[in-house]
Amino acid sequence: MELQLAKGVKDTGPQEKIVQQKIVDVLRRIFELYGYVPLDTPILERLDVLSAKYAGGAEILKETFKLKDQGGRDLALRYDLTVPFARYVGMNKDLKLPFKRYQIGEVFRDGPIKLGRYRQFWQCDIDAVGVKSMKIDAEFIEVFNKAFDELGLKVEVKVNNRKILDDIMKKIGVQDGTDIVLILDKLKKVGEQEVNKELQQKGLDDKKINYLLRLMSLKGTNKQKIVELRKELGDSDGLKEIEEITKYNNEFTFDVSLARGLTYYTGTIYEVYLKNNPIKSSVASGGRYDKMVGEFLGTKQEYPAVGISFGLSVICDAIKKENKKTNTQVYVIPIKVNCTEIIRKLRDSEINTDLDYSDKGVSRNLDYASKLGIPYTLIIGEKEVKSKKFTLRDMKTGKERKLALTQIIKLLK
Amino acid sequence: MELQLAKGVKDTGPQEKIVQQKIVDVLRRIFELYGYVPLDTPILERLDVLSAKYAGGAEILKETFKLKDQGGRDLALRYDLTVPFARYVGMNKDLKLPFKRYQIGEVFRDGPIKLGRYRQFWQCDIDAVGVKSMKIDAEFIEVFNKAFDELGLKVEVKVNNRKILDDIMKKIGVQDGTDIVLILDKLKKVGEQEVNKELQQKGLDDKKINYLLRLMSLKGTNKQKIVELRKELGDSDGLKEIEEITKYNNEFTFDVSLARGLTYYTGTIYEVYLKNNPIKSSVASGGRYDKMVGEFLGTKQEYPAVGISFGLSVICDAIKKENKKTNTQVYVIPIKVNCTEIIRKLRDSEINTDLDYSDKGVSRNLDYASKLGIPYTLIIGEKEVKSKKFTLRDMKTGKERKLALTQIIKLLK
Repeated sequence: MELQLAKGVKDTGPQEKIVQQKIVDVLRRIFELYGYVPLDTPILERLDVLSAKYAGGAEILKETFKLKDQGGRDLALRYDLTVPFARYVGMNKDLKLPFKRYQIGEVFRDGPIKLGRYRQFWQCDIDAVGVKSMKIDAEFIEVFNKAFDELGLKVEVKVNNRKILDDIMKKIGVQDGTDIVLILDKLKKVGEQEVNKELQQKGLDDKKINYLLRLMSLKGTNKQKIVELRKELGDSDGLKEIEEITKYNNEFTFDVSLARGLTYYTGTIYEVYLKNNPIKSSVASGGRYDKMVGEFLGTKQEYPAVGISFGLSVICDAIKKENKKTNTQVYVIPIKVNCTEIIRKLRDSEINTDLDYSDKGVSRNLDYASKLGIPYTLIIGEKEVKSKKFTLRDMKTGKERKLALTQIIKLLK
Repeated sequence: MELQLAKGVKDTGPQEKIVQQKIVDVLRRIFELYGYVPLDTPILERLDVLSAKYAGGAEILKETFKLKDQGGRDLALRYDLTVPFARYVGMNKDLKLPFKRYQIGEVFRDGPIKLGRYRQFWQCDIDAVGVKSMKIDAEFIEVFNKAFDELGLKVEVKVNNRKILDDIMKKIGVQDGTDIVLILDKLKKVGEQEVNKELQQKGLDDKKINYLLRLMSLKGTNKQKIVELRKELGDSDGLKEIEEITKYNNEFTFDVSLARGLTYYTGTIYEVYLKNNPIKSSVASGGRYDKMVGEFLGTKQEYPAVGISFGLSVICDAIKKENKKTNTQVYVIPIKVNCTEIIRKLRDSEINTDLDYSDKGVSRNLDYASKLGIPYTLIIGEKEVKSKKFTLRDMKTGKERKLALTQIIKLLK
């Protein structure tokens, strides 16, 4: 048998996993800072739940991994964390609203493999259900900015509102503008010429196309864009919502061309991009979906909801690789002595310590520690045990120092 | 549609997830303290890998979730973290040995549902491949003791060695003693009478049974047991290994009746139990499997390996429920004022802060914060904004104090 990974998945080795864990730790801390509580839903869900009418929709269902359990029940692997969140809300009637939860977990999509797209990937989501106020929409912008700031990445948070796009469609006399909105969404990716062509194919005349392209390319501050659009659309609810957000937080770019693929969004939508970075795909996104939860649950009760998702893999790619292969701080090389006590003292001082178990000798051990990327080695022979001074070697510079254990602990902390 | 979970899985709500995260954080820190690096392997594996001859075996394969991708390829959900670890070692030929990795992740088994047994559950594993020395077997005992000490649980680490069991089987003239060893393993659970009966059914005479039961119930210190057994078994490799472990670490109970179900163990085996606790099942376990990796990879190269696994769910059950439903420290109740700045200052001071977005009024908000288990509320009206003194309410005692923001931050930190 030739050892192989399943198609479209990958191992995350120590070097990448260390970066990933760092990102998750930062996100988790920030999510809790903003009052979100942790929730875990299972990876295995019933197929009827994930394929319900108001769940992810036909496109995503095509990419859903399906399976059966021993009892012949139809199951599926979750394709996102939002539908399970809606199910959880529906099954826990005593939940106090607003309910603000975060979830960090793996999701699965049996789709085509493109560069950087995997069939199993991590999502880091926060969602709030039971809040109508734009205060929370504004707060999400703060969460984006704070998170990427702490991760050391410069970003631009783009914001739009689905209601504005609907108003624009009405203005040009289009009933169901979903297709057209999705074409406009590609403006930055494929350029004006291509969008122009596709809009023509949809039967729009030049006048309407030019009108759309003019609105999509409005320049200026958020306020200026709002003023410009109000001239066109009048008393638009979407514009009012964007305007209210600016009252609480103006650290974003209002971008009328932003549409987001998913059909369930009803209001504010977000998409976050890196500044001055070769990575062009978005690193986080989300939006308001005021109808989805209620419709999914088949109830008339209103469940206004808004949520965002951080793309762990792409953030991982963006963070300057620190080339850190291990969190181990020191590697102890005993030369035919028992250093159990010394090693215990290092670990009791919270210093991550590895050691040679097999008396491999100094040079092979130095080579090993160097390959593993451990920054320091500690050589301990009989002489060292007697004198209580140990040789600490800085693996980067090769510099060695004879130090007492207390000094070593101080230095490594 | 009635909303339902898939059979045998469950949601982990905030209260339980907070405990679970705490345990995982402790384990992760300790794993790194002992020089283990993080690794993530995918949940989706190829079925041929998981069903290979030297992988988990027929019993576990019956409980493996199988599925196909769009290309018709046979896949499976991983049932443990050890077989994927062996695959990873095989696929990464440039890996420097010893390789010490930890992995914390979910595994899946489509088995019968018993109390507390789920079809999806977490495993927290450390494994080392490429170390023969008993120094590392001794170190695992230290890891067990340290981890449970930090988790506030009193445990007994039981240790045995498969080679000793083999020697005992030889001594009573049994060729393949697997069945008999598994019967002896049940001694504590089902009692002497039942074990006696089952051994008789296997064709053992009274003399042999009494001999076995005497060895299984040896009393005394580890040293005394070793001396006793040496009289019976002579120059046993297993006894030598146990004896060597006691030289480095004697904080365990040598228990000859311990067998562990899995067939791939070759030497030291561990099983950790809670002391003075109604939970009788083991909370962690593991052992040495010197042949499995090499056989699995179909190579003659030796891959001595040893690993242990912590049972997250059972540890979660054992940890005194703190009744903590949230990590949020304070809930802000604005009375028709904009407190964006105050909230930002709280969060900038690393205080987990939630707030009312919807002007629900004081009493409904106090009720909400109380139900969510948030320890403090902060009421802010116009008067408070002017005087810069805010009402901090201790939700447990109901005591209210008027404090400046700096005092509040100090108190909550």
